[in-house]
Amino acid sequence: MSLLEGKAISVSVFGESHGAGIGAVAEGLPAGEPVDLSRMQALMARRAPGGALATARREADAVRVLSGLKDGVTTGAPLAVWIENGDTRSRDYEAFRRVPRPSHADYPALLRYGQATDLRGGGHFSGRLTAPLTAIGGICLELLERRGVTVGAHAFAVADVQDAPVDSEQLTPAQLMEVRGRELPVFDEAAGARMREEILAAKADGDSVGGVLELFALGLPGGLGDPMFAGVENRLAAALFGIPAVRGVEFGDGFSAARLRGSAHNDAYCQKGGRIGTKTNHHGGVIGGITTGEPLVVRMAVKPTPSIAMAQRTLDMATGEETVLSIQGRHDPCIALRAVPVMEAVAAIVLLDLMQHQQRETNGR
Amino acid sequence: MSLLEGKAISVSVFGESHGAGIGAVAEGLPAGEPVDLSRMQALMARRAPGGALATARREADAVRVLSGLKDGVTTGAPLAVWIENGDTRSRDYEAFRRVPRPSHADYPALLRYGQATDLRGGGHFSGRLTAPLTAIGGICLELLERRGVTVGAHAFAVADVQDAPVDSEQLTPAQLMEVRGRELPVFDEAAGARMREEILAAKADGDSVGGVLELFALGLPGGLGDPMFAGVENRLAAALFGIPAVRGVEFGDGFSAARLRGSAHNDAYCQKGGRIGTKTNHHGGVIGGITTGEPLVVRMAVKPTPSIAMAQRTLDMATGEETVLSIQGRHDPCIALRAVPVMEAVAAIVLLDLMQHQQRETNGR
Amino acid sequence: MSLLEGKAISVSVFGESHGAGIGAVAEGLPAGEPVDLSRMQALMARRAPGGALATARREADAVRVLSGLKDGVTTGAPLAVWIENGDTRSRDYEAFRRVPRPSHADYPALLRYGQATDLRGGGHFSGRLTAPLTAIGGICLELLERRGVTVGAHAFAVADVQDAPVDSEQLTPAQLMEVRGRELPVFDEAAGARMREEILAAKADGDSVGGVLELFALGLPGGLGDPMFAGVENRLAAALFGIPAVRGVEFGDGFSAARLRGSAHNDAYCQKGGRIGTKTNHHGGVIGGITTGEPLVVRMAVKPTPSIAMAQRTLDMATGEETVLSIQGRHDPCIALRAVPVMEAVAAIVLLDLMQHQQRETNGR
Amino acid sequence: MSLLEGKAISVSVFGESHGAGIGAVAEGLPAGEPVDLSRMQALMARRAPGGALATARREADAVRVLSGLKDGVTTGAPLAVWIENGDTRSRDYEAFRRVPRPSHADYPALLRYGQATDLRGGGHFSGRLTAPLTAIGGICLELLERRGVTVGAHAFAVADVQDAPVDSEQLTPAQLMEVRGRELPVFDEAAGARMREEILAAKADGDSVGGVLELFALGLPGGLGDPMFAGVENRLAAALFGIPAVRGVEFGDGFSAARLRGSAHNDAYCQKGGRIGTKTNHHGGVIGGITTGEPLVVRMAVKPTPSIAMAQRTLDMATGEETVLSIQGRHDPCIALRAVPVMEAVAAIVLLDLMQHQQRETNGR
Repeated sequence: MSLLEGKAISVSVFGESHGAGIGAVAEGLPAGEPVDLSRMQALMARRAPGGALATARREADAVRVLSGLKDGVTTGAPLAVWIENGDTRSRDYEAFRRVPRPSHADYPALLRYGQATDLRGGGHFSGRLTAPLTAIGGICLELLERRGVTVGAHAFAVADVQDAPVDSEQLTPAQLMEVRGRELPVFDEAAGARMREEILAAKADGDSVGGVLELFALGLPGGLGDPMFAGVENRLAAALFGIPAVRGVEFGDGFSAARLRGSAHNDAYCQKGGRIGTKTNHHGGVIGGITTGEPLVVRMAVKPTPSIAMAQRTLDMATGEETVLSIQGRHDPCIALRAVPVMEAVAAIVLLDLMQHQQRETNGR
Repeated sequence: MSLLEGKAISVSVFGESHGAGIGAVAEGLPAGEPVDLSRMQALMARRAPGGALATARREADAVRVLSGLKDGVTTGAPLAVWIENGDTRSRDYEAFRRVPRPSHADYPALLRYGQATDLRGGGHFSGRLTAPLTAIGGICLELLERRGVTVGAHAFAVADVQDAPVDSEQLTPAQLMEVRGRELPVFDEAAGARMREEILAAKADGDSVGGVLELFALGLPGGLGDPMFAGVENRLAAALFGIPAVRGVEFGDGFSAARLRGSAHNDAYCQKGGRIGTKTNHHGGVIGGITTGEPLVVRMAVKPTPSIAMAQRTLDMATGEETVLSIQGRHDPCIALRAVPVMEAVAAIVLLDLMQHQQRETNGR
Repeated sequence: MSLLEGKAISVSVFGESHGAGIGAVAEGLPAGEPVDLSRMQALMARRAPGGALATARREADAVRVLSGLKDGVTTGAPLAVWIENGDTRSRDYEAFRRVPRPSHADYPALLRYGQATDLRGGGHFSGRLTAPLTAIGGICLELLERRGVTVGAHAFAVADVQDAPVDSEQLTPAQLMEVRGRELPVFDEAAGARMREEILAAKADGDSVGGVLELFALGLPGGLGDPMFAGVENRLAAALFGIPAVRGVEFGDGFSAARLRGSAHNDAYCQKGGRIGTKTNHHGGVIGGITTGEPLVVRMAVKPTPSIAMAQRTLDMATGEETVLSIQGRHDPCIALRAVPVMEAVAAIVLLDLMQHQQRETNGR
Repeated sequence: MSLLEGKAISVSVFGESHGAGIGAVAEGLPAGEPVDLSRMQALMARRAPGGALATARREADAVRVLSGLKDGVTTGAPLAVWIENGDTRSRDYEAFRRVPRPSHADYPALLRYGQATDLRGGGHFSGRLTAPLTAIGGICLELLERRGVTVGAHAFAVADVQDAPVDSEQLTPAQLMEVRGRELPVFDEAAGARMREEILAAKADGDSVGGVLELFALGLPGGLGDPMFAGVENRLAAALFGIPAVRGVEFGDGFSAARLRGSAHNDAYCQKGGRIGTKTNHHGGVIGGITTGEPLVVRMAVKPTPSIAMAQRTLDMATGEETVLSIQGRHDPCIALRAVPVMEAVAAIVLLDLMQHQQRETNGR
């Protein structure tokens, strides 16, 4: 299902990479909210494909809002967006029914839907489907900022290069917004330069690299979420794994927490200005499914782009013989970088949903 | 919400650590399935607390099946289980309303539910709530085996000690069942001995350690799952983060995939006996939300037990002054180990749900 | 599925008529709400079976609260109730696998679940399953009253006898509470006497009669609900059809509205004290899925009890021959009357859910 | 929410009457199903507005399929439809913010969404939103026929005029398809003529009339559905109340059942060709939430069109004074007739969903 169901907000994504277009319907956005479409478009531009890593990005997809906005204000009715596909060349894709691309969804899609599945450009499995999701998330980011919440992600790592470690307790919204706006969103520009080298080296080899993205949400109130299966971690993880190529999701210290002793991992409570907080943030702002009021910290691992120009082995399913495949066309040498605004968008949808739900609960007491 | 909602099977968990008891209701289990309650009870025994790591485990909680079984066979009606709590001493817990335990849910629960929340023994946030979940999962494990699927987890790492790496492509159901039955479930017993040392050393210090668990599911058919938000990864992650203390979930190579190049991470398709498979399994049996037929590989990170006897700093919220807390009582020095059968149980619920759903889709074509 | 899913509150019902017992789990009740269990028990007593229509009712089922309450106050965690079954004689029910009772769920249950289905006393299809639902609804009724909403139902009709028509615009909470507390809940006691005669006449014949119940909710705020598929009508209808033997649900003028002209059916808006209201209430308090602030009016039709002592024809599925069946035992000659508190309970669950959801939306703007 | 959620198929409806257009996204349709768009368009034509009752109908809305179809076959990905709105004149609608139309959603929408709500042409509450729903339902009708199920509705009553009573046990698919194709879909053409007179008389008076629609589904397998809250009645009722102006839903004898004795209402089981059936069909093909294999019979009451040319009283909310409103423009004098294909479409979505779910359950045993 391509439906991201929240407690208050649900988003249904549709379309195919090489079909008529791609779109999404968001239900449950609050009514009466002004929406600045130029901000949504700016987020879309960050997701848009660029030629090389360093080249100027091309125009972002033009988003048409089909419903739910009147005079630039949400009406409370479902808000639908639509992006018409431009010219696409699909002639090569039918070959993948016979010779599936390694680590692509071609083969699982055939297992799941049979020959009726649309493999052109990846069909409904394409990373292109994140475009309408980014459009909806762009609106949610604006609504979150109106509620005092700033969301931003950076390239935590690309291949073996790590960005500078970030102390989430010291991070300001201004710093976060500055970094997320960079072409290569890192805190340490020297690390960014090395990442660039890694990417270009892989590209030169007809290969690709993976990366890890880290997202912060600042200003989230404490007490958001639910125990067990509807906690902040459950909902964010379920949504983030909806972004193609994501292989792992972790909160706070994440997998590193497993190596620590309790005395090193526990965060001491303390007074922080007028509120209660913690001195450190190993917990990443969420314990037992519920926010503490500290910065939310979540990371996701993005695998290397599976489409590579290098020759690789795979199977010709018609003959049953192994064969060699070299995937032509322009492919991102590091798909992780394009996922940065998508991660922000998806997290924004989930966090706005949690906040809308939270208001009910708090006020319901 | 303590409701794990599947497409076919939903599980609602209820109860508190120091209340009358704990239970769960499972809807949508198929009718006509014989259930061997001694196998469920054996899984419960693996979850039951033991004194030291090495001591004989105590009796598992006795599970009463309240509904949904007749003459040992599922009727198709909701199946409910109930575990009556024994004697509990709750007198100390009220103090945690004032002096919240670091990295526990005490403080978030107060933010979320106000003073009405039940903190005794962790209340509804307690790890004890995984007992009824394990009971339901035990039934699902049996139904999965009847369908040819074997699920088992091991301690991938405890503190800095790693178990031997497992080649999922070579793993047999018999090996998996043997390892998962061990008191300390590892493939490499020497690594297990070092894990034991780490745990006992931490315990001696009044401290605790974390760990990473790795689960395999063998025999899963290909084509299970859905794209985007209802894929195998989304559903398993959403469920696994429902286990207390889990901080990260990853599939296949997971976070390590981010460090690889595409040419190293891509898995070549090939003939495997009568079916199509892959030569390697970096993808962990699932691509784009859908299973490929290769072994499913998922890991989760478990933080060190937050309850430690060592003195630690925290806040007295009544006075606003920092104070020192030392948590008395018997606590698991490595909660990760007790989570092994829980991980199997939760994964079994999700995988059985996927298989029930899958049958519809396949037959619906 | 025996799961009533709301936006904020979900209720999972389990158990069988002749199994160990019956129960329910309610998720999402607000925290910090005092609950008077004697009021819940009083609603249960109204549902409890009596011998003849006129005889003193027997003891209601004793409800044990398993979780979610601490010191008589909701904790925010799932609230579970359990009613242990007493002695039951199930020996006769196996015959119904072979000779299904007309208009009972025996035959559909066999189609749905196969021979594994539990037919004893109706199994999970029994009207007895409304007991735990009534317990949960009893709590919701109390919470609704605390929020200024009074819910009550009366016997609108039994067989061909109608209660006095009620002008919902003039109805006071005190009147409603008085009527709903009567043994035979009618506004016109003379009509009640004639209903009693009809019921006793049917009983004397070994037969049964049906009835129509009408429920009012006074004090509901306007603006509750959603357009299209999650409106007040959709949610109430979906829930009320969960009560066994319900065959129709209508709002306001309901089916009678179809016979009116628009000029007669439209309700003129007007000032009403400090608020805007309507002069008449043909719309029953809800238009387009959303409440107007006028009294909510909903009716449901309950079929005559299918279990009758009179001989009736049916099929012996083993021989394929028609046969004659006479159902022994004590059966309600008018099951509709026992459904009155159940209707109130189910409506209360739905309306409390709507109000919890509503608070979010209003405050979210 | 404008989301119709099924077990296998979900439909999200979006758009406004006088916005850019209207659409819907259907998730979970089976893959590999050929779709004849001319049949969908024919159903759309039956829903399209005509001038007078008797005049030739205007062109139906042109449906553009945005996704989910490739070469006329479903791909398994979400199927989205879009209908661009033509020229609309919205200048008059702003007045309804101040002077709400009686029995319209204007006032409840203002309560729910505040001034941000879009009232132009009824906005998202407009009957026009049933057009994309009809498009999706048209596809489902075709898929149902491929599975041996025929769905059709007729005008059971308009104002006080009733169509001939239909014996569902004798009804053939051919008869049903013939009647549903008529401009005024009735079995008794003389009754149809009197209905026409009633409608034209109301129209001449600047007034409107209501009606009752009756739908049959022939060929449904027995054993579809679930007990309690996910039964056939619950799901159909929840969906049918999503059609604007519906005020009641009943199954089988419905409200009439309440007037019968059990001995008259019970349906005797018998042999029917090779299967087990019932001699009569008071139960309307469903007992306890589960189909019996007899024809499904469901009726819904549609209120008289609230928009009438006749002067009617309402409130000027700006001045607080009562005023007189006469609604200009072309309005259907009997909206019930246009709801006939919509009822078929909505029922088809629910029934196809049930059948997809059923296959899983049956095969899962």
